Amino acid sequence: MTEGAALAAAIERTRAEVAALHAELVRYGLVVWTGGNVSGRVPGADLFVIKPSGVSYEELTADDLVLCDLDGVVIPDSPGSSRSPSSDTAAHAYVYRAMPEVGGVVHTHSTYAVAWAARGEEIPCVITGMADEFGGPIPIGPFAVIGDDSIGRGIVETLRGHRSRAVLMQNHGPFTIGASARDAVKAAVMCEDAARSVHLAREAGPLIPIPQERIDHLYARYQNVYGQDGDDRR
Amino acid sequence: MTEGAALAAAIERTRAEVAALHAELVRYGLVVWTGGNVSGRVPGADLFVIKPSGVSYEELTADDLVLCDLDGVVIPDSPGSSRSPSSDTAAHAYVYRAMPEVGGVVHTHSTYAVAWAARGEEIPCVITGMADEFGGPIPIGPFAVIGDDSIGRGIVETLRGHRSRAVLMQNHGPFTIGASARDAVKAAVMCEDAARSVHLAREAGPLIPIPQERIDHLYARYQNVYGQDGDDRR
Amino acid sequence: MTEGAALAAAIERTRAEVAALHAELVRYGLVVWTGGNVSGRVPGADLFVIKPSGVSYEELTADDLVLCDLDGVVIPDSPGSSRSPSSDTAAHAYVYRAMPEVGGVVHTHSTYAVAWAARGEEIPCVITGMADEFGGPIPIGPFAVIGDDSIGRGIVETLRGHRSRAVLMQNHGPFTIGASARDAVKAAVMCEDAARSVHLAREAGPLIPIPQERIDHLYARYQNVYGQDGDDRR
Amino acid sequence: MTEGAALAAAIERTRAEVAALHAELVRYGLVVWTGGNVSGRVPGADLFVIKPSGVSYEELTADDLVLCDLDGVVIPDSPGSSRSPSSDTAAHAYVYRAMPEVGGVVHTHSTYAVAWAARGEEIPCVITGMADEFGGPIPIGPFAVIGDDSIGRGIVETLRGHRSRAVLMQNHGPFTIGASARDAVKAAVMCEDAARSVHLAREAGPLIPIPQERIDHLYARYQNVYGQDGDDRR
Repeated sequence: MTEGAALAAAIERTRAEVAALHAELVRYGLVVWTGGNVSGRVPGADLFVIKPSGVSYEELTADDLVLCDLDGVVIPDSPGSSRSPSSDTAAHAYVYRAMPEVGGVVHTHSTYAVAWAARGEEIPCVITGMADEFGGPIPIGPFAVIGDDSIGRGIVETLRGHRSRAVLMQNHGPFTIGASARDAVKAAVMCEDAARSVHLAREAGPLIPIPQERIDHLYARYQNVYGQDGDDRR
Repeated sequence: MTEGAALAAAIERTRAEVAALHAELVRYGLVVWTGGNVSGRVPGADLFVIKPSGVSYEELTADDLVLCDLDGVVIPDSPGSSRSPSSDTAAHAYVYRAMPEVGGVVHTHSTYAVAWAARGEEIPCVITGMADEFGGPIPIGPFAVIGDDSIGRGIVETLRGHRSRAVLMQNHGPFTIGASARDAVKAAVMCEDAARSVHLAREAGPLIPIPQERIDHLYARYQNVYGQDGDDRR
Repeated sequence: MTEGAALAAAIERTRAEVAALHAELVRYGLVVWTGGNVSGRVPGADLFVIKPSGVSYEELTADDLVLCDLDGVVIPDSPGSSRSPSSDTAAHAYVYRAMPEVGGVVHTHSTYAVAWAARGEEIPCVITGMADEFGGPIPIGPFAVIGDDSIGRGIVETLRGHRSRAVLMQNHGPFTIGASARDAVKAAVMCEDAARSVHLAREAGPLIPIPQERIDHLYARYQNVYGQDGDDRR
Repeated sequence: MTEGAALAAAIERTRAEVAALHAELVRYGLVVWTGGNVSGRVPGADLFVIKPSGVSYEELTADDLVLCDLDGVVIPDSPGSSRSPSSDTAAHAYVYRAMPEVGGVVHTHSTYAVAWAARGEEIPCVITGMADEFGGPIPIGPFAVIGDDSIGRGIVETLRGHRSRAVLMQNHGPFTIGASARDAVKAAVMCEDAARSVHLAREAGPLIPIPQERIDHLYARYQNVYGQDGDDRR
């Protein structure tokens, strides 16, 4: 296969994967109407694909996704290039530029995560499921509005060097990252699950902390042992 | 096409659109049993179509919708004219008469919006999704009961000149308006989403306000930039 | 048609209706596993049909329903007579004996209704939807356990002469009655909806009462005007 | 049939039953992503089958389940033996070794049960549905992390001699046991239902206790009378 054909095939696979992953946002109740998006980096290229703006999840097909370079500029004459990409495209692009290890980015306004974000309060790590998945608390990112690089910069400054793959942008909502788009979607699902469980736990009384060394132990095991060999789900 | 044929076609399109939109109320959990309704203005005519009273959402077809004039009087010998229109028809009609820019009206008893309404408390704008969609708080309308124009008047007096397309009628529930029926349904979905997120946020501690100029900026951008060109979803 | 054939046809219709109505309990999330039941009186006979005990909702067919006399005794050699009827059969039978106007009875353990029942606290009528449907608060019935007539007696003593078609049996859960099985199912759906909305409303601050004469007005209108003529949905 | 053929048939039946039961965890909202598992003892053998680690519920087939001995060691050359069993396998195995009457074990991170677990607080028995099913409060087990026998030991020490078939492991989540895998799944469903109802009840005011002799009476009746004869659902 020529290099061009290999790239075209990689773009196709990424389109199909990212389109299908939007259904997981719906299934787990993380989005209403058109308010959330998934993007995925094209392996081996400085490109990513992202949801078009304002398109419903049921109508979304692989060809609707918009192919962008790492500055968030739409690649002309590609499928979906007649559409406007998600209004969060600049934030996704910033993350891909700054964090080469990131293969996928997800943004939602999932209910309980937004509730923590509206108080600017990080989610404490008091359940073993959070220790497994995030290795500690889920942090708060700065208040930032659309229009420049401030959302992308806020995500990167908060998550770089942090165990958590999820950040709650203040007054806004969660952004999650992952080694793949699928991994970032899993982080979005588990972030909302943690936000809900800890919210409910705390409203009824004081929480029992988990000692840090136990958190460290759970996180290390989960990253290395869980799942099937060669499984990208971690 | 004659003028009569064009009108007939416009009525048919509106019937089909409004019938289908009721499924969105079910999908997003905004209604139980038969407790919510959508209406849509027929473009270019002083007419609107509305759900018949007490009919279940699964049974509802385009031909079941009731065609009314702007006084809420059923047009005789039209499909659905043997049925009673929604008991909220007078309120919808009042809105269409008073606000020519409105193309659709929705009423539900969605859970969290009703909770704010039972306290007579407006929903503060502390999340960016609300700033985008409503440009500020979602206001409370007066207590008013069925039987005269008081519900319709309360909706219009509250929403005229207000950025919000949603009003919470005290002790009752939300009414939303939009440029189209679809836009009013979107407002109903986003209103419940905001009601839920802010309810949960506040029960766990103090909220961080968003500065007014940031709200203004987000609202202006969302009204002008979001979605695809020519998209009626705003 | 002979009298015997007419009765057989009435039993068949009641079986089919009651079997189908169990799906509404599932749809509205009022039941988990096998924990809720619907019964319906056979029009023109001293008989009712009820869910068999411990059978899942997906497996339930019209022939599985158990035909009983008004003492709750299974009619021998009828379809379903090899099965044990619901363990709540004595309570349903008591209601049919004591209240000839009742055509259907429903029992669930729906979440929010159970929460009010565990505190022994009636649901105040602070939303117009409750005024429409129940004409005032939803009352609490006595603590009573299975084994004698005490549950049935508690339901009847609470609901006889009361506008509400729903009673929350203390520490137990809701029982609802109606002119038909469908009407009793509607009452179960609206009872949980009211229990949830008022629970959420009150946890965030003081509620605004609705003046009694407004409640009376709404209730009177809804009982007489809502729905289509000849509609058993009220 | 030879003894070997009978064992093979028993393994097949157990595989099919346990695979299908995972769908109940999804249906009742007890799990997100891959975070819960069911196992079932093979009748008449020192073997059990369990979910593979990190496999999604939609993809799961009977042949994917992993067959283990009572030390949790995978039986070589059996279907599914190329997969890693659930990371909770050691805990399940411990329960099967220590409690020969147990035919099924379930673990989830269901939301409300986790909330009680994060506070280390048992669920008080204030609703008759809990008295029926669990015969008293749902207890808390010790804090224990994966890596040795401590989770399995904590489950057994808490549930041995206890009426409850559910334990909330502190900071972790519920484990349930049953005479069969189906019975353990029912316990998981009813545990979350009780956790949710009692959480909501208590957040709005003081609960009415149920006298112990009434709890004893309800529990005794439910274990002996409920359901159909010969029904494994209890």
